[in-house]
Amino acid sequence: MPVPNKLDDARDLLARANRMIANEDVLDAFGHVTMRHPTDPGRFLMSRSRGPELVQPNDILEFTLDSKPVKPTDVRLYGERVIHGGIYQARPDVNAVCHHHAPSILPFCISGTELKPVYHLGATMGRTVPFWDSRDDFGDTNLIVAKPEEGASLARALGPNWIVLMRRHGATVAGTTLEELVFRTIYIARNAAVQIQAHVLGHVAPLNASEINLAGEYNLRPGPVARAWEYWSVRLDKAEGTWRGPKTKTAAPKKRQAKGKTKAKRSR
Amino acid sequence: MPVPNKLDDARDLLARANRMIANEDVLDAFGHVTMRHPTDPGRFLMSRSRGPELVQPNDILEFTLDSKPVKPTDVRLYGERVIHGGIYQARPDVNAVCHHHAPSILPFCISGTELKPVYHLGATMGRTVPFWDSRDDFGDTNLIVAKPEEGASLARALGPNWIVLMRRHGATVAGTTLEELVFRTIYIARNAAVQIQAHVLGHVAPLNASEINLAGEYNLRPGPVARAWEYWSVRLDKAEGTWRGPKTKTAAPKKRQAKGKTKAKRSR
Amino acid sequence: MPVPNKLDDARDLLARANRMIANEDVLDAFGHVTMRHPTDPGRFLMSRSRGPELVQPNDILEFTLDSKPVKPTDVRLYGERVIHGGIYQARPDVNAVCHHHAPSILPFCISGTELKPVYHLGATMGRTVPFWDSRDDFGDTNLIVAKPEEGASLARALGPNWIVLMRRHGATVAGTTLEELVFRTIYIARNAAVQIQAHVLGHVAPLNASEINLAGEYNLRPGPVARAWEYWSVRLDKAEGTWRGPKTKTAAPKKRQAKGKTKAKRSR
Amino acid sequence: MPVPNKLDDARDLLARANRMIANEDVLDAFGHVTMRHPTDPGRFLMSRSRGPELVQPNDILEFTLDSKPVKPTDVRLYGERVIHGGIYQARPDVNAVCHHHAPSILPFCISGTELKPVYHLGATMGRTVPFWDSRDDFGDTNLIVAKPEEGASLARALGPNWIVLMRRHGATVAGTTLEELVFRTIYIARNAAVQIQAHVLGHVAPLNASEINLAGEYNLRPGPVARAWEYWSVRLDKAEGTWRGPKTKTAAPKKRQAKGKTKAKRSR
Repeated sequence: MPVPNKLDDARDLLARANRMIANEDVLDAFGHVTMRHPTDPGRFLMSRSRGPELVQPNDILEFTLDSKPVKPTDVRLYGERVIHGGIYQARPDVNAVCHHHAPSILPFCISGTELKPVYHLGATMGRTVPFWDSRDDFGDTNLIVAKPEEGASLARALGPNWIVLMRRHGATVAGTTLEELVFRTIYIARNAAVQIQAHVLGHVAPLNASEINLAGEYNLRPGPVARAWEYWSVRLDKAEGTWRGPKTKTAAPKKRQAKGKTKAKRSR
Repeated sequence: MPVPNKLDDARDLLARANRMIANEDVLDAFGHVTMRHPTDPGRFLMSRSRGPELVQPNDILEFTLDSKPVKPTDVRLYGERVIHGGIYQARPDVNAVCHHHAPSILPFCISGTELKPVYHLGATMGRTVPFWDSRDDFGDTNLIVAKPEEGASLARALGPNWIVLMRRHGATVAGTTLEELVFRTIYIARNAAVQIQAHVLGHVAPLNASEINLAGEYNLRPGPVARAWEYWSVRLDKAEGTWRGPKTKTAAPKKRQAKGKTKAKRSR
Repeated sequence: MPVPNKLDDARDLLARANRMIANEDVLDAFGHVTMRHPTDPGRFLMSRSRGPELVQPNDILEFTLDSKPVKPTDVRLYGERVIHGGIYQARPDVNAVCHHHAPSILPFCISGTELKPVYHLGATMGRTVPFWDSRDDFGDTNLIVAKPEEGASLARALGPNWIVLMRRHGATVAGTTLEELVFRTIYIARNAAVQIQAHVLGHVAPLNASEINLAGEYNLRPGPVARAWEYWSVRLDKAEGTWRGPKTKTAAPKKRQAKGKTKAKRSR
Repeated sequence: MPVPNKLDDARDLLARANRMIANEDVLDAFGHVTMRHPTDPGRFLMSRSRGPELVQPNDILEFTLDSKPVKPTDVRLYGERVIHGGIYQARPDVNAVCHHHAPSILPFCISGTELKPVYHLGATMGRTVPFWDSRDDFGDTNLIVAKPEEGASLARALGPNWIVLMRRHGATVAGTTLEELVFRTIYIARNAAVQIQAHVLGHVAPLNASEINLAGEYNLRPGPVARAWEYWSVRLDKAEGTWRGPKTKTAAPKKRQAKGKTKAKRSR
């Protein structure tokens, strides 16, 4: 029964991705992380409506690409599902999406100052960071992207890029895999915080186009992405009180395992 | 016996609201959160004097709207009770009040720069954020709002709005419910922090009046407010070491509950 | 045997004050908190040399006012004892001193911008914040205040005030009691952080002289000082894993104490 | 068998140094800390590729100075080993190296504003902080220092100094001992954060050359370095849940040890 297991694994990973990004202070009570269904590209997975730091595997539901739940449900759903459905429709290469209001990204959504890759890890944002202003297509709104045409407009603004800033609202980030998405989402937020501090110092000299291409590619290889995932994942375990690593080893030195064994388990 | 239970519930919620807002770094050793009595609109509930992060249900006492304790007590009371009593008198639509000195709000109280809604969640501050300067009515004081006439002056400055900035002192926020108050208090503080960073980047383009109305209404609906409350509440439980969620599940995988059951309990 | 107990109590309080201020990120690996001996005004109490966050009652030693240990010892001592001895000699009204390099205070020591009380709790710094530059009296040094004449120079610069900024180094704060010192030290640091953010917004309008006097006096009364102490103390207990408050109550609801009893214990 | 023990000790210390610097938010998912082999100056010790906060003694491998593993291995290795090998080759006086992308250091790598010692603890950076721009020698790259000639170029830029800033990338810090390296790395990052805030206030008056020499020497003596190491080490233990200090004492007062005994154990 490989299909159910793949879906269970996806649910576990997606719930964890929600909690990891929240634990790194990029998501708070709002925002959401989704992924395309692992075996059916015409569906995507998304939690029921709750703070992303609280999302558990059983919260994850299936949606069609027009952002409707596959199975009828009476649980509360996120209002901004069309952000995700719109992008999965427009971008077959995208398999994971995060929408957020990170404190370091919002100042760029408000000031209009361009967000730029200012160090190699920020290069994962790509060469172009489009701005989308809901007023252009829809005039005065509540700024929430809840209608299919709003999701489609945002997806058009994203175009072939990997992040779109949403004026007076936040950002939406895309990835070819969930792991890549988590990496890109967190390091763009870190890059933004650094760029603001560089503005305090008075001058910002970003990467050039060629450096962005090269550094973006290098850092999104499986090795760096897996390394960062492990790091944020352990930090989440620590925050949730489920981390059992060094604790068992140093707290109870008498029961310490033989070194060889421990190493074998940790190697990858 | 519905009345005693309603009051007990209110005490629990109000104590928790004090601790939640403190846990989000909006309150510190000082400041206070109050609510109108759940069955007697001529009274309000407020803790005895202690840091809001420490407030427990048994600390909550009843006060008349002229800010006097209903029952004689020899515990130490907050000096600024009239902030709350004054607003409950002037505003029958207000059922919860928070007075605080949040680090992100204070710079606006000092610089005179206008606090503006710069993203949709900040729209909960409303279109107008009045400034109150104790010097105008009372000249040089210790800046504490402790006299009935001071509370009344502040309530007049608040007018029909939802937050009033107090020069060289802090802010006072109001809500129609305790849950709404918590949401508004925390997200105005977050909005203020973002606005300061946007000033670093050089330009601040806030929401317009229509967007403020629409986004404010949308985000103060029961769904978003409950979602944020659950998030801050779990974060408080984690900080207090009382969180039992994922911990039991991952720490002792053998005792894991059947998935269906778990989901049923978590759904709302 | 009242005298030994008073000294033991003082050691407990002083160790806790060191850890509390460090837990609030005002002290780091360096800096120190001292108090005058509770029964012998010709002596003061200070930890052996270790990070203030680690100080335990048994680390506390007695020193004469010329900053020499009363009993010979081979443990490592702080190099800057004369900061404390110098002030205890010059200021009989001072019974506690903290020397630190708080991240929010240092920018004022480097830029020369005047630190001002910008909200009521910052008024505890007083109307005058003198600057001391070690170059004036001693030319180029390692910036450490280790010689008796350096301590005396700093004490002269402090004069009758409550904090002295030390250029390119940090600050030294004084109090009439240990509790007052902790309050003043932490809230001046908070005031400094807020003032920096107000500079970002472009304008700083501080308290006037009369407001500083009135608000300083009000906040240093026993009530507010005890309230803040309790708050920082509980936060320390949480950080050290020794907090037993709400945990026992919510974790094991069956063993919950009768409400009346609990309240009686918590009241003061 | 003194040699194996020395190596085991070095592995323990190096793993801890990685985790300590990460726990102080100077390292994140990336960056690395290495040390020269304790008995063979022609080798250095470095973890396999993983987030430094996760590094355990068994992760530490031996490398030749041309940055190749001494024993063949199939575990993933850091790509930037030549940063370390290049410096150990060029600088026989250097016995520990840290490469990082600290949030407070990066703005200086982007803006070109000079990083200066602005308080005594920052003097450990030394009088000269060279800038290295990978474009000068290698044109457009992915900014990663992975080729031997790149490592050699960076080592030349470092010259006889103790830190080199890497434009659009981060910094590399050197020390004569591991303990000194940890001290210098963390306090330069703290100095950078303070300097940025001083820029907000408008003016930066750094230490002069003589003060840098004197304060740098003073603070890198064994006493201050050991004091800081103990502090960061206990903070790491707290973060990892392995701290057993005050917890046992206050949590179970009946089992409290005799004071004399406790003191004897803590003294050094």
